[in-house]
Amino acid sequence: MSDLIASDSPESAPLLVVGSVAFDNVITPHAEQQRILGGAASYCSFAASYYTQVRMVGVVGNDFGESDLGRLKARGIDLEGVKRDESGPTFFWKGKYHENFNRRDTLDIRLNVFENFRPDLPESYKDSPFVLLGNIHPALQMHVLDQLSGDAFVLADTIDLWIETEREALLSLIQRVNLFVINDSEAEELTGESNVILAGNKLRQMGPESVIVKKGEHGAILFHQDGMFALPAFPVTQLHDPTGAGDSFAGALIGRLSSRNRSDFASIKEAMLYATCTASLTVEAFGCDRLESAGKSQIEGRVDSLKQLISIC
Amino acid sequence: MSDLIASDSPESAPLLVVGSVAFDNVITPHAEQQRILGGAASYCSFAASYYTQVRMVGVVGNDFGESDLGRLKARGIDLEGVKRDESGPTFFWKGKYHENFNRRDTLDIRLNVFENFRPDLPESYKDSPFVLLGNIHPALQMHVLDQLSGDAFVLADTIDLWIETEREALLSLIQRVNLFVINDSEAEELTGESNVILAGNKLRQMGPESVIVKKGEHGAILFHQDGMFALPAFPVTQLHDPTGAGDSFAGALIGRLSSRNRSDFASIKEAMLYATCTASLTVEAFGCDRLESAGKSQIEGRVDSLKQLISIC
Repeated sequence: MSDLIASDSPESAPLLVVGSVAFDNVITPHAEQQRILGGAASYCSFAASYYTQVRMVGVVGNDFGESDLGRLKARGIDLEGVKRDESGPTFFWKGKYHENFNRRDTLDIRLNVFENFRPDLPESYKDSPFVLLGNIHPALQMHVLDQLSGDAFVLADTIDLWIETEREALLSLIQRVNLFVINDSEAEELTGESNVILAGNKLRQMGPESVIVKKGEHGAILFHQDGMFALPAFPVTQLHDPTGAGDSFAGALIGRLSSRNRSDFASIKEAMLYATCTASLTVEAFGCDRLESAGKSQIEGRVDSLKQLISIC
Repeated sequence: MSDLIASDSPESAPLLVVGSVAFDNVITPHAEQQRILGGAASYCSFAASYYTQVRMVGVVGNDFGESDLGRLKARGIDLEGVKRDESGPTFFWKGKYHENFNRRDTLDIRLNVFENFRPDLPESYKDSPFVLLGNIHPALQMHVLDQLSGDAFVLADTIDLWIETEREALLSLIQRVNLFVINDSEAEELTGESNVILAGNKLRQMGPESVIVKKGEHGAILFHQDGMFALPAFPVTQLHDPTGAGDSFAGALIGRLSSRNRSDFASIKEAMLYATCTASLTVEAFGCDRLESAGKSQIEGRVDSLKQLISIC
């Protein structure tokens, strides 16, 4: 892969990605597509693969083909941690987006082999210096942290389901997390604050060193001990499927940090530029298609445009 | 007024502000206040008065007291263009904000003397090089433009009412406008585009040199022939009354441009920083109270903070 940025970054550190692998059926106001390779781990890994060496942990079922694995392999992703469970099919989700994509309904969900998923790390993964915990059950996210052998920089994502059903476990987890990424409605749900600034500050007081609140088309805000940073989203005009945008954001964000082996305030800000631009590619096609086929130069081009968009000079 | 920026800017050019003057009753989820000095012209003029000499045009009724006029005079605002109509009371509006301030209902509206308002300019106002057309009927906005003697830089605002009832007049007006300022829902209503980027580009094709789409707490986006500029809002945590935020934004924006006698892309971007910071003061109290009492140094402090907030370095 000529555009694997990892290869030209001598300081690059490997990134552990843990999450779901799924097949999705997605219905949008304009189209419908079936058996889309999805799940948080897939989006995160594809996105991060532009920046660093990805070590992926997840489970796939007996319907997961060599061609599906081949897509991940083609991006240089290490699949030693992806288990194949022959007892059933891969996690399945079917969802429908409303007009303007501002809301979606889950029409069907089947955990399948994901129901018994336990993220046990291969020995070779335990020293990973950067870790992305996708939005799985907080107890499983915690189990990953318990297996790490060294000090890692940990980014965790979550979803409303765990805020509603596993609040205590989630609150324990985020105390061990360096960077907690959450969207605005979830931040309100977790903190009770409808003001995004107050919610972000409150989340930081709950444990994580830093917090990023994502606001979709309105961008994202970083809350860090050294200050705040507000970044507009990359201006997308061809929205086709928002699925995986958040995962792509998280994957690119920590992928970029891994590639530079840095996690200071300025580096997180810089990585957010890459994160929003990478996520902008994801939403321009169904599933991982556009993300997978985009070249490094396209991402860099968007980062340059985004810098212009926010420049006051 | 020691903090009138106009006085220390030798290149400062006078600004003509036209719009409504009103008394408002405002009910928020937390409080209620009556007989608030409001209306677009008041907010615009107070906001602009921090930057330049304001020439105000509007009408007030027989209930408008010397103390009300005194508040405007105290900010150095030229009131030659403010007519007093003894035939009835001042324009009155009563509104109620919902929880989280994301929606408001008009409970009562009485045009009173504003019903026969015709913005005839005093001779001394006709050469104004900068003009702010507040959100009055587009035919009245046009009448103002027809009286100008020279080339002016014109900013126009509007509201959903005119988009719904006076679309043709509004479309004629914006062809004569340099900078059209509109909020996101109005931009969608006028263009039929729910995507804010597409809506902004379409608005520019409808005539105005530049367009700013305001997104409330999510900031604002400038569409200009030299490029786009996206600016997050100043992070407000003490929201008390959003009334007049848009008018304050517009007033500060063109006030800042007037003070520098410039209207190029970079100057509009810079003025947007002042606009969002000035508007952030407005919403921290009922009516014009906070806006009126804020000093120049407070605005400058917020502009510095905002620059930090959006800095990628």
